Amino acid sequence: MPTSSNPSENRPSVAVTIGDPGGIGPEVVVAALADRELWRRGRFLVLGSESVLHRAAESRGIEPYWWSVPFGSPALRATGVHDVVLLDTDRSWGAVEALPTPNRGAGAYSHRLVEEVIGMAQAGDGERVSAIVTGPISKAAWVMAGKARFPGHTELLADRFRARRVAMMFVGPRLRVVLATIHLPLMDIRNVLTIGKVFDAIDLGAEGCRMVGVSRPRVAVCGLNPHAGEGGLMGDEEERLIAPAIEHARNAGIDASGPFPADTIFNAAVAGRYDLVVAMYHDQGLIPVKLLSRDESVNMTIGLPIIRTSPDHGTAFDIAGRGMADPGSMRAALTMAAEAAGRVGGKQD
Amino acid sequence: MPTSSNPSENRPSVAVTIGDPGGIGPEVVVAALADRELWRRGRFLVLGSESVLHRAAESRGIEPYWWSVPFGSPALRATGVHDVVLLDTDRSWGAVEALPTPNRGAGAYSHRLVEEVIGMAQAGDGERVSAIVTGPISKAAWVMAGKARFPGHTELLADRFRARRVAMMFVGPRLRVVLATIHLPLMDIRNVLTIGKVFDAIDLGAEGCRMVGVSRPRVAVCGLNPHAGEGGLMGDEEERLIAPAIEHARNAGIDASGPFPADTIFNAAVAGRYDLVVAMYHDQGLIPVKLLSRDESVNMTIGLPIIRTSPDHGTAFDIAGRGMADPGSMRAALTMAAEAAGRVGGKQD
Repeated sequence: MPTSSNPSENRPSVAVTIGDPGGIGPEVVVAALADRELWRRGRFLVLGSESVLHRAAESRGIEPYWWSVPFGSPALRATGVHDVVLLDTDRSWGAVEALPTPNRGAGAYSHRLVEEVIGMAQAGDGERVSAIVTGPISKAAWVMAGKARFPGHTELLADRFRARRVAMMFVGPRLRVVLATIHLPLMDIRNVLTIGKVFDAIDLGAEGCRMVGVSRPRVAVCGLNPHAGEGGLMGDEEERLIAPAIEHARNAGIDASGPFPADTIFNAAVAGRYDLVVAMYHDQGLIPVKLLSRDESVNMTIGLPIIRTSPDHGTAFDIAGRGMADPGSMRAALTMAAEAAGRVGGKQD
Repeated sequence: MPTSSNPSENRPSVAVTIGDPGGIGPEVVVAALADRELWRRGRFLVLGSESVLHRAAESRGIEPYWWSVPFGSPALRATGVHDVVLLDTDRSWGAVEALPTPNRGAGAYSHRLVEEVIGMAQAGDGERVSAIVTGPISKAAWVMAGKARFPGHTELLADRFRARRVAMMFVGPRLRVVLATIHLPLMDIRNVLTIGKVFDAIDLGAEGCRMVGVSRPRVAVCGLNPHAGEGGLMGDEEERLIAPAIEHARNAGIDASGPFPADTIFNAAVAGRYDLVVAMYHDQGLIPVKLLSRDESVNMTIGLPIIRTSPDHGTAFDIAGRGMADPGSMRAALTMAAEAAGRVGGKQD
């Protein structure tokens, strides 16, 4: 797979959205991409507003370091020598306000950024994008902008790429977790969790591990109920859904085991006995992820035809614009995207 | 409140069960109580089998240090000078086998220990017991012994003490957590969670904080759904049940706030911004508790007319009998029980 329109170029191209313009997305993108060490791993195309990024750079005392072209301009084709290129939306769509609160304009804007980055990834002509990194958006702003259909990036990406199976995976320095269900009311899990859903999470999680360099992951699967149901005394999903899914995964050659009580299995994974934990629902997986790795964890979407990562934090409106947001998770997301793209690219050569 | 039959004695008396004789309970009790520093804080009455405790002591290279009388013997009245007294069940009920696997005999035995320690606490004559510390039991063994009615100590204690409201609280060095629901299938929460249930957890949790010396606790309450429902986008229990319960608690003078997303609020508590987190269900509270404090956390039952603590681990049959179990959580449970009893006793003087 060619990773650039420049034949002498073997770095993968990574497209980056700034997310909600009023959140911390712009400043963590500016701060993380300022690290020249990253540029050796990938070439970065940032979709965003020049004026917003300038203010973000100023708030952190960073000199603008990017080459800028209007979004959608054919000039992009001539930017191959630049490590970081801003595809400026100001000059193409007009200015956008950066308010530290969910609002309609910012919601429509950040939603459009995602749609456009998907379009770039799908186009396949001109600059070939190998990976997408998305800045944090405000779901409330998306709803205000009439974009209520998808609760987040993951679901929107799955729809646009027509991906039948996707999973949300979190990769931190001490723990990797993949979720079997994501953004739904906890009590609706009963309508959604199936053997296939659990199997997909195991299977996609194993694929995600390979993307980050773990070739034969040891996968631990959580139970749904307290004490993993304690042999059927507290719930039957373990016997009815989760154990059969693990069996299928083992038959498919995946080193999966469980279901394990969720309140002890994360310790086992952190101790190094597993490479991945499959959690049944959002909080079961994200409580340990966030407790263990603040500002270091990366959210990956597995199952798309393209690599996609994002930081594990939200817009953090309360601290936005003050230049104090930690760019660690965004830096990790950018690094992981470039490395995974390089790995996939390398394999296919 | 008199804490001993010996009028010169002002240490509280703490009754201790060894739990399942084949689990790690006996050895962690023996190892933890060998610490003479503990004896200054309380006098300890251990309910258990002399032969099992001797083997446990031997496995750890500890010389037996306790005074022993047959369980139920009037000789207990004359033991006031001893710091640790074993109420030996061998001589009263006959020997018990210590098998590292759930079995009927051990289930009946460990269940009876709990019934007897409750009887001692309720009797109110002779040696006055101010606190109970329970060793880990096997629920599977209880079921084998036909004791399936209660899923654990907490529910059995609540029934026997006719406690209308009880809550399970975990106290560790970095985090305190109380649970609104405990041992039920996750999907049954919909039938159980009410405003009253959430309020009780907040109220009892605040009481538990006072028992361990936090006089005006700052209480954070978790949501049930991902992102605490995100303003009703993913579930309505936050608006329908949890927010009203917090409001009631505030009206009752408790410094409670929330509902907060469960995947971020534990970080805030660990950072010192809250003294207690109220979790809606077992894994939501216990995943962070166990991740943060291995072998240091204590389980307290709040709402009983007596102080009750236990270690936060189970029988650990896989390592039992080999003298390698960490007695840290049992030591913390014994210390906390004695200190809380001293605090309550002191207040009432």
